[in-house]
Amino acid sequence: MAESWSSLETAESNFRPLVVIELAKGTKAETIEWFTKRIVDKKADGGAQLLIKPLVTENGCENIYLVGASDLRLLLGAETVGLVKECNDNSMRTFTYSSRKTFKDFADDNHNFLTMAECQYIIKHELENLRAKSEKMIPGYPQAKLYPGKSIVRRLLTSGILVQIFPLHDREELKKLRHSWYGRVKIGYQPLDDIRCYFGETIALYFGFLEYFTFALIPMAVIGIPYYVFAWEDYDKYVMFATFNLLWSTVILEVWKRICAILTYRWGTLLMKRQFEEPRPGFHGVLGINPVTGREEPVYSSIKRQLRIYLVSLPFVCLCLYFSLYVMMIYFDLEQWALDYHKENESSFSSLMLYVPSIIYAIVIEIMNRIYRYAAEFLTSWENHRLESSYQNHLVLKVLVFNFLNCFASLFYIAFVLFDMKLLRQSLATLLITSQILNQFAESLLPYWLQKRHNKKMKKRICSQKTDADLSLADQVNMEKEMGTYLGTFDDYLELFLQFGYVSLFSCVYPLAAVFAVLNNITEIYSDALKMCRVYKRPFAEPTANIGVWQLAFETMSVISVVTNCMLIGMSPQVDALFPDSKMDLVLTVAFVEHLLLAIKFIMAFVIPDKPRDIQMKLAKLEFESLEALKQQQMKLAAESLKE
Amino acid sequence: MAESWSSLETAESNFRPLVVIELAKGTKAETIEWFTKRIVDKKADGGAQLLIKPLVTENGCENIYLVGASDLRLLLGAETVGLVKECNDNSMRTFTYSSRKTFKDFADDNHNFLTMAECQYIIKHELENLRAKSEKMIPGYPQAKLYPGKSIVRRLLTSGILVQIFPLHDREELKKLRHSWYGRVKIGYQPLDDIRCYFGETIALYFGFLEYFTFALIPMAVIGIPYYVFAWEDYDKYVMFATFNLLWSTVILEVWKRICAILTYRWGTLLMKRQFEEPRPGFHGVLGINPVTGREEPVYSSIKRQLRIYLVSLPFVCLCLYFSLYVMMIYFDLEQWALDYHKENESSFSSLMLYVPSIIYAIVIEIMNRIYRYAAEFLTSWENHRLESSYQNHLVLKVLVFNFLNCFASLFYIAFVLFDMKLLRQSLATLLITSQILNQFAESLLPYWLQKRHNKKMKKRICSQKTDADLSLADQVNMEKEMGTYLGTFDDYLELFLQFGYVSLFSCVYPLAAVFAVLNNITEIYSDALKMCRVYKRPFAEPTANIGVWQLAFETMSVISVVTNCMLIGMSPQVDALFPDSKMDLVLTVAFVEHLLLAIKFIMAFVIPDKPRDIQMKLAKLEFESLEALKQQQMKLAAESLKE
Repeated sequence: MAESWSSLETAESNFRPLVVIELAKGTKAETIEWFTKRIVDKKADGGAQLLIKPLVTENGCENIYLVGASDLRLLLGAETVGLVKECNDNSMRTFTYSSRKTFKDFADDNHNFLTMAECQYIIKHELENLRAKSEKMIPGYPQAKLYPGKSIVRRLLTSGILVQIFPLHDREELKKLRHSWYGRVKIGYQPLDDIRCYFGETIALYFGFLEYFTFALIPMAVIGIPYYVFAWEDYDKYVMFATFNLLWSTVILEVWKRICAILTYRWGTLLMKRQFEEPRPGFHGVLGINPVTGREEPVYSSIKRQLRIYLVSLPFVCLCLYFSLYVMMIYFDLEQWALDYHKENESSFSSLMLYVPSIIYAIVIEIMNRIYRYAAEFLTSWENHRLESSYQNHLVLKVLVFNFLNCFASLFYIAFVLFDMKLLRQSLATLLITSQILNQFAESLLPYWLQKRHNKKMKKRICSQKTDADLSLADQVNMEKEMGTYLGTFDDYLELFLQFGYVSLFSCVYPLAAVFAVLNNITEIYSDALKMCRVYKRPFAEPTANIGVWQLAFETMSVISVVTNCMLIGMSPQVDALFPDSKMDLVLTVAFVEHLLLAIKFIMAFVIPDKPRDIQMKLAKLEFESLEALKQQQMKLAAESLKE
Repeated sequence: MAESWSSLETAESNFRPLVVIELAKGTKAETIEWFTKRIVDKKADGGAQLLIKPLVTENGCENIYLVGASDLRLLLGAETVGLVKECNDNSMRTFTYSSRKTFKDFADDNHNFLTMAECQYIIKHELENLRAKSEKMIPGYPQAKLYPGKSIVRRLLTSGILVQIFPLHDREELKKLRHSWYGRVKIGYQPLDDIRCYFGETIALYFGFLEYFTFALIPMAVIGIPYYVFAWEDYDKYVMFATFNLLWSTVILEVWKRICAILTYRWGTLLMKRQFEEPRPGFHGVLGINPVTGREEPVYSSIKRQLRIYLVSLPFVCLCLYFSLYVMMIYFDLEQWALDYHKENESSFSSLMLYVPSIIYAIVIEIMNRIYRYAAEFLTSWENHRLESSYQNHLVLKVLVFNFLNCFASLFYIAFVLFDMKLLRQSLATLLITSQILNQFAESLLPYWLQKRHNKKMKKRICSQKTDADLSLADQVNMEKEMGTYLGTFDDYLELFLQFGYVSLFSCVYPLAAVFAVLNNITEIYSDALKMCRVYKRPFAEPTANIGVWQLAFETMSVISVVTNCMLIGMSPQVDALFPDSKMDLVLTVAFVEHLLLAIKFIMAFVIPDKPRDIQMKLAKLEFESLEALKQQQMKLAAESLKE
């Protein structure tokens, strides 16, 4: 890796640029001086104790700074963020600088002990936790108020002085990763460990889930094909398929928890403690003492947060849901009106009018989604969650419920109000295939085009150099700062979640959905990989132990799909014909079967352990050791107190 | 307390008898010698390092031994069992001998730092973990085989050499406890902390739950009374009552978890780690190394256990359930036959015959319950669970399912097959009131009579002494060893569970059930307290952090009651009349409401945190400290490895 940084334009040869800070053009000199001083200052003086260099290009200084850190600083930072690494005895332990020799692959001259992504995560963490001391405002900007404990970087970002912070790509590593990931046509697993090393755990876990989910859908797809090929329409075959689907979806979600535990144990994030997370950058409050760690940090009353959630956010979400349903009803009215209009005066204009309601509805939904997303982000931010994970969970939950309704409400209406199975199948197929094509376009074709355009632009600018490897650092920074920002795995998971809905909610009506989902996901892996490597700025690594609220979302979807499938089967004419005498018996039978399936699901979820036995043992061992260590420490304290 | 042991007949004045061991009459001398030697032997030599004295009475030695331990031994034992005590800074910490000075109320001359129940628990633990070394058999009894790691006490018990082990009562303390518990007529809370000190956490938690549950039922009872007084039969009032009941039962079960956490945190058992529990006495296996603790103990393959559970126990339970249902169907057939017979030849004989099926059914159920209980205990023991808690959970689950079916199957049949609401109400009232009267008799009147008889017998034997306080130790031991053995909280919880079933499963048919339940529970507290203090031997204290599988059982019951209540309301003629045109609409509406209620229940259970915030913080703090301690230890290790 050292070679790729050979073109370093900094004075010190051991300065390795990791993170880029871009300040607004025309930022006052005193602000820059104060900010860089705070970054360089010793920890004891409230600084971040990092290294910072201005980036000098042909056009002179452009207010772009490169941040790095000494190896020692990074190792101490790894201890601060609570990184978990593998020890020589193959167990995973929280890294401490003093016990560094016991860790695998650690050597004083080995600069690769921490991956570049980890170094960048550490620097980001340190920068974000750079907090105001006695400053009342940002020097030079009296309107940008500060108070003790406020994150400086956060204030600089909100007041527009700081344009962006992003980690640098490592072109050599990226090339290798690209090659092993999607460079060659091959059937096989993704290099998840390499992805994790380069992009961090959150993104690696998403790709792991995408891959797992695709494999898990294959049985459904295989069983679904003959239904299409032989045009099976018998209710008993549908019942079999739906039953298999419902139980299978429970199994795959339970097994995913186990696979997730295996992955995150290997990556060390399963052991990172959530309670000891530092407060998220946006978190504000009066500076106080954290009752758990005894450290000084902003504190905010949990009751206030609960009040905000239940008295403001919850009613707002409910109102939005009601409004969305209202809009849907208007759409169905409009469609009915357009149909009537077409029947009355059959003309080319009236047949065109048939499409108008759908178009209006699609546009309105898109607008509502955007406004709602904005509102949800504002509200969740206002709820002032202490931890990033808790913020994310609340945001995801809000957006999820709304998207679920927007996506499936019309299908529910068709299925259970209009009772039109043919229209349901047709709408389902249209929605599924359209959304997949649109997504593939937005994630694969569009990025490809953007990348090409980008390459051309860059080629023009750096006409003397021809290959990527020869790019100077300044060129690389200038190129990367123009790239788009990856906004997190949210939209990717949402896409999978909605897809899971299409596959499972109405699976007994349209068994082919799983086939389309599998085909889509195989290309999705490639297009998402391309997107990560070619289109976006490198994102900061985010350690995570699981897919968070998404697990719950998928599980809830699988419970809802039991209800919908049982209702659909109960409504099918073949099942209807089985109970010619009494509709009552039919409904009661369906309700009984539904409750039985739900009971089986819950029992299965209860019986299958969330973590494989060996991971359980390893975690228990660590806990036992830490309790023994606590005892030892108490013994030492006791021995000291006896001396006094 | 020292005064109450003043009449000690042992040579050493500091020997405090805690536990009584009764060997079979005619036990060989070499066996006694070997066993007492093992109890007295040093820990390092594989002994228990306790004190043991034969009890000498007027009739000479009766093979009864008193076991005690030095204060130091007890403190070290407290460390071994992982007792959690309050520190000087009000936090709860695992006790270690070396840090003893940091604990509240610890002083070298304070023999009350450990409660007597804790001392007895420690001694029991040490005795049960006295394991065979190289012995092939119990000396003197070649048929009683031993192998390395086998619990000696367990083998002695199973081979009949050891008759019983029980802890001694503390007559002074018991008198105080009795007085504050039920001695005076008062409205108020039970002295749960005193109960816990005397009887241990499991029993105190049962009484805590009984009290909490009684208070929680009061709102239901209060709302239920007007239904009886004004003979309300309107469906809307029933719907309101049932809805309130269903949501209320979710709330009370969630709140109980919080109260339970508060209690067990205060008692220190919330922090006792389940993984580090020693294997239960009955656990057998080849001696190996525990992968978590690194200690030598029997190990047994978890896969074998799973196979035994799923391939033998589960099918057996299912078969028993099927058989029980089959017997119930025969009972209904018999009853029908008896009715027909009575109709055909109306005579006094035929009217007597009407009662025959019920009597036969009651007897058969009782026999089945007993046989099943025996089989369940055998199977669970054979499953070879490593931990006592896991054994208990599996046993409780097995017995519970069977008892649930036996108790409620006939009510379900009447409600949902015969559709006879009048009969249902009548059967429910009969069953509830009969079972409560029977239980009160078995738990209050019978014990009272037993106690009286016992007192007379004792008075006869010790005619010279008149008051209890003057009883000699030998007399006390002889009296207590004849008392019945308390078999654990299982039957008490089962009674409450079935009561909860009567109250909630058909609450919309018989709102008065809650009133009877409250009245019953108030007397139940007194009769159970009497039973514990007067009738039974003192039981060994059992630390526990929650009510275990019972929480799950009550929650499941509350989910089932949503389904039954919705069905009952849907079947009521008033609701029927609301949907005159279409039965279909009725059923769909009921199903919708049921799903809505279930969803609300799950959301409520999800939203209400299981532990109060301050307990969460305290636990997080402890975890944080133990992780910090581990870091410190790693640092020390690292420092040492650097020196080498």
